[in-house]
Amino acid sequence: MARHLGSSAVRDILKLTQGGNIISLAGGLPAEDLFPLEAVREAYHRALSGNASVLQYGITEGYTPLREKVAARLSRQGIAVSPAEVVLTTGSQQSIDLLCRVLLDPGDTMLVESPTYLAALQVLGSYRANIVPVASDTDGMLPGDLEHKLRLHKPKLLYAVPTFGNPTGATWSEERRHSVVELCRRSGTLILEDNPYGEIAFAGGDKAGLPSLAAIDGGMGGGTVVYTGTFSKIVAPALRTGWIAGSKELVSTVARAKQAADLHSSAVDQRALDELLSGFDLEGHISAISREYAARMKALSSELRSRNWAGAHWEEPQGGMFLWLTLDKSINTAELLPLAVARGVAFVPGEVFYPGEPDRSTMRLNFTHTPPQLLPLAVKRLEEALEEWSGQGLESLHPGSH
Amino acid sequence: MARHLGSSAVRDILKLTQGGNIISLAGGLPAEDLFPLEAVREAYHRALSGNASVLQYGITEGYTPLREKVAARLSRQGIAVSPAEVVLTTGSQQSIDLLCRVLLDPGDTMLVESPTYLAALQVLGSYRANIVPVASDTDGMLPGDLEHKLRLHKPKLLYAVPTFGNPTGATWSEERRHSVVELCRRSGTLILEDNPYGEIAFAGGDKAGLPSLAAIDGGMGGGTVVYTGTFSKIVAPALRTGWIAGSKELVSTVARAKQAADLHSSAVDQRALDELLSGFDLEGHISAISREYAARMKALSSELRSRNWAGAHWEEPQGGMFLWLTLDKSINTAELLPLAVARGVAFVPGEVFYPGEPDRSTMRLNFTHTPPQLLPLAVKRLEEALEEWSGQGLESLHPGSH
Repeated sequence: MARHLGSSAVRDILKLTQGGNIISLAGGLPAEDLFPLEAVREAYHRALSGNASVLQYGITEGYTPLREKVAARLSRQGIAVSPAEVVLTTGSQQSIDLLCRVLLDPGDTMLVESPTYLAALQVLGSYRANIVPVASDTDGMLPGDLEHKLRLHKPKLLYAVPTFGNPTGATWSEERRHSVVELCRRSGTLILEDNPYGEIAFAGGDKAGLPSLAAIDGGMGGGTVVYTGTFSKIVAPALRTGWIAGSKELVSTVARAKQAADLHSSAVDQRALDELLSGFDLEGHISAISREYAARMKALSSELRSRNWAGAHWEEPQGGMFLWLTLDKSINTAELLPLAVARGVAFVPGEVFYPGEPDRSTMRLNFTHTPPQLLPLAVKRLEEALEEWSGQGLESLHPGSH
Repeated sequence: MARHLGSSAVRDILKLTQGGNIISLAGGLPAEDLFPLEAVREAYHRALSGNASVLQYGITEGYTPLREKVAARLSRQGIAVSPAEVVLTTGSQQSIDLLCRVLLDPGDTMLVESPTYLAALQVLGSYRANIVPVASDTDGMLPGDLEHKLRLHKPKLLYAVPTFGNPTGATWSEERRHSVVELCRRSGTLILEDNPYGEIAFAGGDKAGLPSLAAIDGGMGGGTVVYTGTFSKIVAPALRTGWIAGSKELVSTVARAKQAADLHSSAVDQRALDELLSGFDLEGHISAISREYAARMKALSSELRSRNWAGAHWEEPQGGMFLWLTLDKSINTAELLPLAVARGVAFVPGEVFYPGEPDRSTMRLNFTHTPPQLLPLAVKRLEEALEEWSGQGLESLHPGSH
């Protein structure tokens, strides 16, 4: 199976950008300066203040009080779910992996957006799924193409990040959400709704507060949507705690797969998060980071606008962590990357996010991790790289054709 | 793949034994009263005393200083390994899972001991491996049978727990260790040496201090042995931190699989363990728990001896956490279990540990978790269940044959 895990020249280049003087807009990292460090410290202190049983093996499904709190939060967000319908995982990445592990046989078809989350493509590749992209616009998957592909491929699963998506930052319209749930329900195709960014909503967006696909399906009773989320973006990633919510039958199968995979995730981290949720104003914290991320996004967008590059366009995301930039269609961003890195700025070339034929003039820019005062310099360096690209011309990029 | 994850009526019965007045010798739990709780508390405190970067995403391979400490400990134990040959995992369970994930294609043959670690069988089943047991005695796998099966099946992998094994507590002799490594090396079959218990050695055993298979192979340079271990038994399980050591090429493939599986394991727990290893006398702690576990094993063995059950026999383990009891061959321990649970004692029927035809008169008894003063009562209850079993006779157990 090793040969199905994928490789990445891009990944190798991006490894070079860690540390040093390179401003990286490439990662998917939240802002460290906004982590609730003091509250997390106190939470671990309280979690470890009891007796030694805190250090014993826990149950595979996760620490029960935290499952209860996750279920209660989801219910407050309109997704009816009981604690028995939740399994805690090592981040939502593991939710994706375990669900694919229990559902997919080699050659099974899986529908995805195009572009979509890179690490989901890696998971699907590792299970040898037949990955079929569904045509989309900025409002989400196109119902006509979805209907066609549901009929043609009889897929087991549809994977999507409908809210402040990765990599595009796009958000599905309410109408499309209803269409996709309805079409999948009728064809008996399960939807994995991956929602790591949904709570990071910027004020004023016309797509704020839209119901999740899981809410539209009527919570976990609906049976069409499995839902995954994480504390990585709203608290901190190092605790590696996410969840998967689905029907009791499905999550109990996922729990059996998790037992084989790692018995359970860190019980210390789960207890610490449970303590954190007991005292800390998480909703206030999420509002604060959302405000700051909105400001950083605006700063990046306004820098880009001031440069006025021929052919460049983007939509400002209404939440999340990424801005999706499309350049003039003559530009290949994978070939631009080494020039940019040499100038001291990094991004992810859009091509890696496409399951099929990529638009090579795209790139994903993260605006949450770089200190905002560095954003003008980052964009200036990107412009220098673009100038170098244009100056080189195609001849010098392909010396063999001289 | 869901249907390959296995189910277990035994597991359902054992679920009933949690809490209440049942003395459980069934679990594989270390003693809570011996956890170094205060040192762990201080370690988390120190780990979280720095800046917020401790809460950021980490690298898939794990926190570098802890990988260095793990590599140094292994080297002190005779296994030459560099930090680049180590990946930190969510317990050694995940090491087993990830290695199988990258190596096994459906239908590939895997050799195992019989009986062997239950959760390894579950992992292998989930990857649809063809599981072939190798004949063994108390000194380990029989070289003749191994050689035959290597030639017959051309297996990709051999899985073994050669030191204080689970479930039998048995330890391979030095001669057998050399034979198995040599035979596998010649046939190009990789060995996964799972060593969660090796450091918990009881004084006075004639098999103490034997070299690991990995040491015999010359460390990770040998290329025949992949090695996995864990902090679960020597520090505490809740931190879910283990490791896999192998050639650089192999562990980098494992790291790619881990990236798809969960990006990385808890970085907070890894930092806390790194802090713990910096100040705490771990080797002294391991000696202390080994002494206490030896005393508990002796107490259980002596209780069993005093009962003098017809046909019962066992070997005292020289380390680890389990005593493997074989009863008169008329007795089916899976059928005995509900009688025992009704009397207030639980064990694991041996049959669940066999990849092939089981010896149904066996059971695994854990001696580390139950407070030693309860062991006489546990054995007394077991005797009552046995008496009830004998009294019932075969007729009353099979009423249909009246």
